[in-house]
Amino acid sequence: MIEAGIIGGTGYTGLELIRLLVRHPQVNISVVTSRRYKGKKVSDVNPHLFPFVELDYEDVDTKEIADRSDIVFVAVPHGSAMEYVPALRERGARVIDLSADYRLKRADYERVYKREHKDKEERDTVYGLTELHPEVADATLVANPGCYPTGAILAVAPLVKGGMVKQVVFDSKSGISGAGAEPSETSHFPNLAENIIPYQVTAHRHVAEMRRELLVNVSFTPHVIPTIRGILTTAHVFFKNENMSKTHEEIEAIYTQFYAGKRFIRLRKGLPSLGAVRGTNFCDIGFEIEEESNRIVVISTIDNLVKGGSGQAIQNMNVMFGLNERDGLWFPGLVP
Amino acid sequence: MIEAGIIGGTGYTGLELIRLLVRHPQVNISVVTSRRYKGKKVSDVNPHLFPFVELDYEDVDTKEIADRSDIVFVAVPHGSAMEYVPALRERGARVIDLSADYRLKRADYERVYKREHKDKEERDTVYGLTELHPEVADATLVANPGCYPTGAILAVAPLVKGGMVKQVVFDSKSGISGAGAEPSETSHFPNLAENIIPYQVTAHRHVAEMRRELLVNVSFTPHVIPTIRGILTTAHVFFKNENMSKTHEEIEAIYTQFYAGKRFIRLRKGLPSLGAVRGTNFCDIGFEIEEESNRIVVISTIDNLVKGGSGQAIQNMNVMFGLNERDGLWFPGLVP
Amino acid sequence: MIEAGIIGGTGYTGLELIRLLVRHPQVNISVVTSRRYKGKKVSDVNPHLFPFVELDYEDVDTKEIADRSDIVFVAVPHGSAMEYVPALRERGARVIDLSADYRLKRADYERVYKREHKDKEERDTVYGLTELHPEVADATLVANPGCYPTGAILAVAPLVKGGMVKQVVFDSKSGISGAGAEPSETSHFPNLAENIIPYQVTAHRHVAEMRRELLVNVSFTPHVIPTIRGILTTAHVFFKNENMSKTHEEIEAIYTQFYAGKRFIRLRKGLPSLGAVRGTNFCDIGFEIEEESNRIVVISTIDNLVKGGSGQAIQNMNVMFGLNERDGLWFPGLVP
Amino acid sequence: MIEAGIIGGTGYTGLELIRLLVRHPQVNISVVTSRRYKGKKVSDVNPHLFPFVELDYEDVDTKEIADRSDIVFVAVPHGSAMEYVPALRERGARVIDLSADYRLKRADYERVYKREHKDKEERDTVYGLTELHPEVADATLVANPGCYPTGAILAVAPLVKGGMVKQVVFDSKSGISGAGAEPSETSHFPNLAENIIPYQVTAHRHVAEMRRELLVNVSFTPHVIPTIRGILTTAHVFFKNENMSKTHEEIEAIYTQFYAGKRFIRLRKGLPSLGAVRGTNFCDIGFEIEEESNRIVVISTIDNLVKGGSGQAIQNMNVMFGLNERDGLWFPGLVP
Repeated sequence: MIEAGIIGGTGYTGLELIRLLVRHPQVNISVVTSRRYKGKKVSDVNPHLFPFVELDYEDVDTKEIADRSDIVFVAVPHGSAMEYVPALRERGARVIDLSADYRLKRADYERVYKREHKDKEERDTVYGLTELHPEVADATLVANPGCYPTGAILAVAPLVKGGMVKQVVFDSKSGISGAGAEPSETSHFPNLAENIIPYQVTAHRHVAEMRRELLVNVSFTPHVIPTIRGILTTAHVFFKNENMSKTHEEIEAIYTQFYAGKRFIRLRKGLPSLGAVRGTNFCDIGFEIEEESNRIVVISTIDNLVKGGSGQAIQNMNVMFGLNERDGLWFPGLVP
Repeated sequence: MIEAGIIGGTGYTGLELIRLLVRHPQVNISVVTSRRYKGKKVSDVNPHLFPFVELDYEDVDTKEIADRSDIVFVAVPHGSAMEYVPALRERGARVIDLSADYRLKRADYERVYKREHKDKEERDTVYGLTELHPEVADATLVANPGCYPTGAILAVAPLVKGGMVKQVVFDSKSGISGAGAEPSETSHFPNLAENIIPYQVTAHRHVAEMRRELLVNVSFTPHVIPTIRGILTTAHVFFKNENMSKTHEEIEAIYTQFYAGKRFIRLRKGLPSLGAVRGTNFCDIGFEIEEESNRIVVISTIDNLVKGGSGQAIQNMNVMFGLNERDGLWFPGLVP
Repeated sequence: MIEAGIIGGTGYTGLELIRLLVRHPQVNISVVTSRRYKGKKVSDVNPHLFPFVELDYEDVDTKEIADRSDIVFVAVPHGSAMEYVPALRERGARVIDLSADYRLKRADYERVYKREHKDKEERDTVYGLTELHPEVADATLVANPGCYPTGAILAVAPLVKGGMVKQVVFDSKSGISGAGAEPSETSHFPNLAENIIPYQVTAHRHVAEMRRELLVNVSFTPHVIPTIRGILTTAHVFFKNENMSKTHEEIEAIYTQFYAGKRFIRLRKGLPSLGAVRGTNFCDIGFEIEEESNRIVVISTIDNLVKGGSGQAIQNMNVMFGLNERDGLWFPGLVP
Repeated sequence: MIEAGIIGGTGYTGLELIRLLVRHPQVNISVVTSRRYKGKKVSDVNPHLFPFVELDYEDVDTKEIADRSDIVFVAVPHGSAMEYVPALRERGARVIDLSADYRLKRADYERVYKREHKDKEERDTVYGLTELHPEVADATLVANPGCYPTGAILAVAPLVKGGMVKQVVFDSKSGISGAGAEPSETSHFPNLAENIIPYQVTAHRHVAEMRRELLVNVSFTPHVIPTIRGILTTAHVFFKNENMSKTHEEIEAIYTQFYAGKRFIRLRKGLPSLGAVRGTNFCDIGFEIEEESNRIVVISTIDNLVKGGSGQAIQNMNVMFGLNERDGLWFPGLVP
């Protein structure tokens, strides 16, 4: 059994790691940390996990976590992960960081996140978008992608990598769980229900990941919708060739070939929606070609907490440990 | 008192006309038609209207409706309105048609809606986007705009009319009431809740209205979100000048000047949301300028059944009859 | 014009007072207080109120509020109202208190709310359930009823007052706006959406109001449902006579007679729901008689912020000032 | 491997059987029927099931289904199941019927459901509330309980079986998926969102199951709430002894003892809610004792499609085939 430690076990990504790992056939959760709930049973604080996890929350030294784990998931907020990773790496633990702290080069991070990067070392990280980065297999430190970049990049990578694309406008709609477990003005039910809330419409930090991976002209505008889980990304893709005349079958072939063997990518005949990926690690993709235009609209859907977070982290772990990437993640979405 | 007839009094636009007209100080509802509910009290079929309307639904001759009314609102589905309008006009009634039947030239209509236009005459109509078309005042036949075009066109008109815009990508999110009162797969609660549904993502018919009014490169992609009312339109606007360096104040000034005196347009300091316009005839607009880019994101919100439908129709009636355009429509949104 | 002051203008009841009073033909809002937003325009903090109110929030002496107002609405939390009411009354202002502070005798209050009552005087108050307490007309201090008691008491008063009832089990379902504008665990969207939350299921404090008004065996269990507004109360009414054989018509006659002339009570033929009362001051009531049983199920619906709060307060003001009780409150619900 | 056939594979219970059975380690789905989708791939019609099931929908003779299956799940509407069961039983298949057709004696069925029972034989059935009916192990025909009775009976059985209870008022709140996959007025999003809909408030047919199992004075009133999944039942339990003075610990002990070894029953310290059981076969139970009263309020929550339907059916199958009752059903709820 692989011993997996979780730093930050009370936020949504931490809890989602537990929800998924308890049914992973080759993993044992070795430690779950929380300062606030230290000494309390994980399943008392989170009744949905009873009786699947018998651990208490602990508040232990980072080195001890490393010693007790083959892999450590860091599921703390941006800016905090960099306080744990150096010690974990020094102690030899393999690490998957679910925060933004290691997704960009240090200098880029400091520019985009407008704060100092406390880890003085430029570490050797792999961007954990497994479908595009097979080098995850050999990684010791994986930077798990942001939820928005996951859905956005996967939606258009086959077209962009084929050199066909001039510009992409990503218009994303996310469930509110992406904002975390802490109540806020935005997550206050009377504010969000019967509403949709655009935010950071020109300057969301996730755009940096998208641009680095795609290397084309990218715009990105996120919104929160009154749902718990899920991100639907509408990618307005503009081709270089104004007289593009690709058929549906040609585009389909490009996707099918690009994602051959990638079991968590499902190319849909119609347009995808959130139900089919709810609670799962799938990324569903569909598209429609605009007539007499160089635009194609590609729609992708993911569960932001699974493929956009903890599920993808486990997929990365599977790849790092030579397991089947589907282990612990292979079940249908909760429909309806 | 202005006598107002309503053809089609059981759909959402018909019911919304009644909800609003019963508190209009200068209007009396003369007749409300329904084949299905003929002879039943309107307020028995729709308890929220008790005791505000004492009429029974009637199924009467179109000419009689014209005779009993100073103004006739046609609130039947696309394709049916054209069966009523000719007789109404022949009998001299002023008409506001809430369907799509008179929004385009006959030939354009037949091309876009892929059906024959049964009204053989090319009628003299005014597109009832009141803020842009003051000639509504003298109209005898007003084509009330589509819900999506209303929010989309108002969002960008000041920039487009100023000649600054190269391209607009409209990404719209609508409450499901826009799909009507009839249950469907899309409106089935388990399908829509916890979801967002893109549809007609490259070829929605409303784009024809947008292009005709704006005369620039327009793309349009609609989605249904799990809310009852409201449309939020995210307009990704690309300026002609790649090196645009407008300040927030300059853009604000353009909007303020363009919409001077237009009381239903509220320019917001932040980004608007659906609550503030719920149940009202307002169109709220906000924007954000992308740094180092030629993109500006403009957000507009309307209540699709009011400013996007029946409220705008009443606003048009007010203008046609020389009333204050706010009569019957001047109250705050339902927040929370 | 009646000058109306509002103490506590940022919570949901304060904002709802403003939303309703701005269209009241005989009222001018004289002052709205807020410590937090002192000096800010009410309509900047709450964009849905633009341009209906031009006032700034103020933080002024209670006596000054009294001097500037013919009527003062106290819309602060339980426990705070009692800090304002004595000074208001001493200065001669008529007062409508929307908190719980004056709904019970001082001794009962201290027992039920488990805190000291800071107002040392046992004031002469009227319980503002207007339909049952016509003495509101002469009141100088009205204790506006709780949201749950309003719907519950109105649902069964005709039967209880007729001496027929042995026992009532009230099972109420409320929108979350009843919990206020402040974000909390319960109002956190991921916690409430796709859920229903029972709370204080045997010991909610509102039961004291119900028992005092009804004087029969009353149980009360509240729940929060994933809606913004509205309370639906299911009253399981058990008759004294085990062999009750009342017909639907007989029960209907009892209600019709009891509520004759009460324009905000609408007896429905079927069972009521929340849409028809949304945003309004109506209380809709319907019922069904169980066969071969002494049980009758009565359902009532109100908008918790209107009839269950600010609307009822305005109705009380209308009665106190000899106006038509419908002034400012007479419009249909927001359906759909 | 157990070969399992599903008659009726397009409704919510049929689809839920497939969703759960595809991860059951000892089951192979042998056949799934649908007249409407005959010949189509199950996973084309229901994309969330791709690639977990490779079957096409079939429309085959009932006897053939029996021959190809060790167990047949009948997941068709009430009134239709009785058309399949006789032939299945004659052919020797073990059957779990998810409809109401075999839950009551024939005579009771005809009285309660007001229709003729087409199966002329009074069959030897076991009521599949596994926790109370261990004889499921030897059953050849299991009548799977209704969704409401499952939650209601489990909530109070320990108290009722202990002879303490005089009367129970069940007030249940259900997600709309209980009404099926077919769009209707009730499931129309604008009608259900921001609402709660009581129905059959004195005469719901499920009460017959409750009364037969509990043998005490039972009232039952259901409501639909704006959620997809889940039933929360509020049981207002009145003890025979007016001077009951049970402590929390004593009641807890009664439940703990009664449900010892029943792994799908989780007694909660606080009050349960829907999230923790979402997508699972658990029934969570909590309670609160009213002071100075003979009332105790017990709350139970289930997922209506799992423990209230297809999950319980699979649990029954597990017991019938001597498997661990948790097989295929042992995973945490989808929180948030």
